[in-house]
Amino acid sequence: MSRLFMFEKPLGMRDTLPELYETKNQVRSAIGDEMRRWGYQFMETPALEYYETVGTASAILDQQLFKLLDSQGHTLVLRPDMTAPIARVAASKLLKEDQPLRLAYSASVFRAQQREGGRPAEFEQIGIESIGDDTISADGEIIALLVSSLREAGLDRFQISVGHIGFVQELFQQILGTEERAHSLTRFLYEKNYVGYREHVKSLNLSSIDRQRLLDFLKLRGGVEVIDWALALIENEKGKAAIQELKQLWEIVVDYGEVEKLRFDLTLVSHMSYYTGILFEVYADQVGFPIGSGGRYNLLLEKFGKSSGATGFALRLDRLLEALGELKKEELAHCILFSEERRQEAFQLAKDKRRAGVKTIVQDINGVKNIDRFTGQFGEVTFLVGSAGRGSY
Amino acid sequence: MSRLFMFEKPLGMRDTLPELYETKNQVRSAIGDEMRRWGYQFMETPALEYYETVGTASAILDQQLFKLLDSQGHTLVLRPDMTAPIARVAASKLLKEDQPLRLAYSASVFRAQQREGGRPAEFEQIGIESIGDDTISADGEIIALLVSSLREAGLDRFQISVGHIGFVQELFQQILGTEERAHSLTRFLYEKNYVGYREHVKSLNLSSIDRQRLLDFLKLRGGVEVIDWALALIENEKGKAAIQELKQLWEIVVDYGEVEKLRFDLTLVSHMSYYTGILFEVYADQVGFPIGSGGRYNLLLEKFGKSSGATGFALRLDRLLEALGELKKEELAHCILFSEERRQEAFQLAKDKRRAGVKTIVQDINGVKNIDRFTGQFGEVTFLVGSAGRGSY
Repeated sequence: MSRLFMFEKPLGMRDTLPELYETKNQVRSAIGDEMRRWGYQFMETPALEYYETVGTASAILDQQLFKLLDSQGHTLVLRPDMTAPIARVAASKLLKEDQPLRLAYSASVFRAQQREGGRPAEFEQIGIESIGDDTISADGEIIALLVSSLREAGLDRFQISVGHIGFVQELFQQILGTEERAHSLTRFLYEKNYVGYREHVKSLNLSSIDRQRLLDFLKLRGGVEVIDWALALIENEKGKAAIQELKQLWEIVVDYGEVEKLRFDLTLVSHMSYYTGILFEVYADQVGFPIGSGGRYNLLLEKFGKSSGATGFALRLDRLLEALGELKKEELAHCILFSEERRQEAFQLAKDKRRAGVKTIVQDINGVKNIDRFTGQFGEVTFLVGSAGRGSY
Repeated sequence: MSRLFMFEKPLGMRDTLPELYETKNQVRSAIGDEMRRWGYQFMETPALEYYETVGTASAILDQQLFKLLDSQGHTLVLRPDMTAPIARVAASKLLKEDQPLRLAYSASVFRAQQREGGRPAEFEQIGIESIGDDTISADGEIIALLVSSLREAGLDRFQISVGHIGFVQELFQQILGTEERAHSLTRFLYEKNYVGYREHVKSLNLSSIDRQRLLDFLKLRGGVEVIDWALALIENEKGKAAIQELKQLWEIVVDYGEVEKLRFDLTLVSHMSYYTGILFEVYADQVGFPIGSGGRYNLLLEKFGKSSGATGFALRLDRLLEALGELKKEELAHCILFSEERRQEAFQLAKDKRRAGVKTIVQDINGVKNIDRFTGQFGEVTFLVGSAGRGSY
């Protein structure tokens, strides 16, 4: 075990300095305000939850959980996502007669990292959960709100890839027969390893027709034309129903006037194991990872005793800021330097300026070691030093 | 070890439901905006820090720390306060040539609770740190900003009790001789157990003059008159210098025009062991605990390799909300219920309303089980159901 320097932070932990903080704050507010306008209600849950309850309900791998023991001997986890805690609260307190609920959050989530220099172990998500509405309209609404939120944040160049986990499951099950075989093929999709997928398909003992179908499956990406291709590929009813859902979704998003942001990618699967239907990822130009993702999870609430369907999305604020590129330039403050004789005058001037909305620092000149360097940070500087009769310094 | 219900939360952990969330958000924004106007810059630090570094630098008792082990075998802690992490960042990244730095934060801090039904184990603090300015003007500024922040939050009835840890230490040291004896007497002050204090003083082997001085010490509470009483009680120079600092502070707060909120309480001590000078607590009417506290800590930065003085305060958002009393009434949303035929029209209406700043929910009527109960939550409801020609439902 290495000795630590006093300044070190745990693996994957980061500070957010003022400039980045304000940009983040501005983006968070813009998105939050849009969510509120759409009738979503913000709430908060604790950073720590029981492993036995929310920890196991979440879809994050066990090795990524930060765990600790409480004084009663229970294992606690730092929340790895917000969907499971919100499901807990919705099921226990908010869901009344299964009426549709629109909830929102912005919160840090925690995922332990194993390597230095890797991904952040704590990052902020802003997202929504639409609970208790099983219509595709609910899925359409969250996609439209996602588009609208990103636009409010100032992002124009992005795309939402939409798939359906039910379709993939049905197709693989139908062709491969066992869940185990379906699962190993799905892993290649999750890793987006299409070369590996092809190799694996070729290695399987399948009819040439089935093999071709699994290879053709990879082409199911694009616009509304994908619907017909997919219907031609799937035989069973559940699989066809999944495609009908995607078709409906497309039409709804057309009615929202946002369909140019949508793109089908039926090869999309997720590491979030609770998804049961439509699912999606958001990509921005020039950012290697999705800046957000979401989908329908109709079984999670059951773990908390309610049989409500739900759908939602989460945006990663760090990646969204990366996509936005520029940091907010900090507005330069006015600085008033004073000595004791003119202190009261300095305080009054500061009060007036702040009231007029000007960011104003009022600083005792005796607290400053290098006046030129200090005043260099500000937009404007007023000296109220020495006796007033002699004019300012 | 008891079995857990699916809904249970760890000891001291709480959910914040929408109504409280919005009130909290509003209060946080009002205070944050005021801090920004005074030139304080917000920043964030991670929830987890090394125990060896920030954990030991913080003034929170070991048994109150949430600890966990990382994969390298280091002990991590959930930050128990924000002052130590900000000192880490200031010392390592922000302090340039010891120029005064004005920083702000709003963040959850974590303190493990041992008993059910007790205090929260996670709560939000909003506060500031003024680093690198050793003048009493810096202490005066943070008190004036505290008053101004509380007023912006909507709180009018509160009082700030100010003491000086240096004065207490000097007086006790002078009369009692040993640090150990001084320490045991200080404990009664920390617990605000004045009966115990008197009993303890009477049990000590002291001259009647010294005993009387320790008893008179308890009377050092009130306005500016306390300054003279205190000077009469203390003999050594360091103790007198502490009182001179308080006198200066009073004059500065007079110049800010805020002295009616100030009150001396020289019996004030703190469990935050890093305080070295002026310290204070804020009390609001009808709240049993201080809603905030602060003071000067001139030695903490040294742990991170810088010899800068610093002063700051933290407000507890939960207690401040308790003091404010009423929750923000949620603005009722407009609800548009639609069926597929009039979907596009519904989306357009919602868009227009949101653009006009009206919170608007647009809901597929097929997603609602009990329409009367559902629509009952909203301020206004528009039905766009069935074919348009037939008029609305």
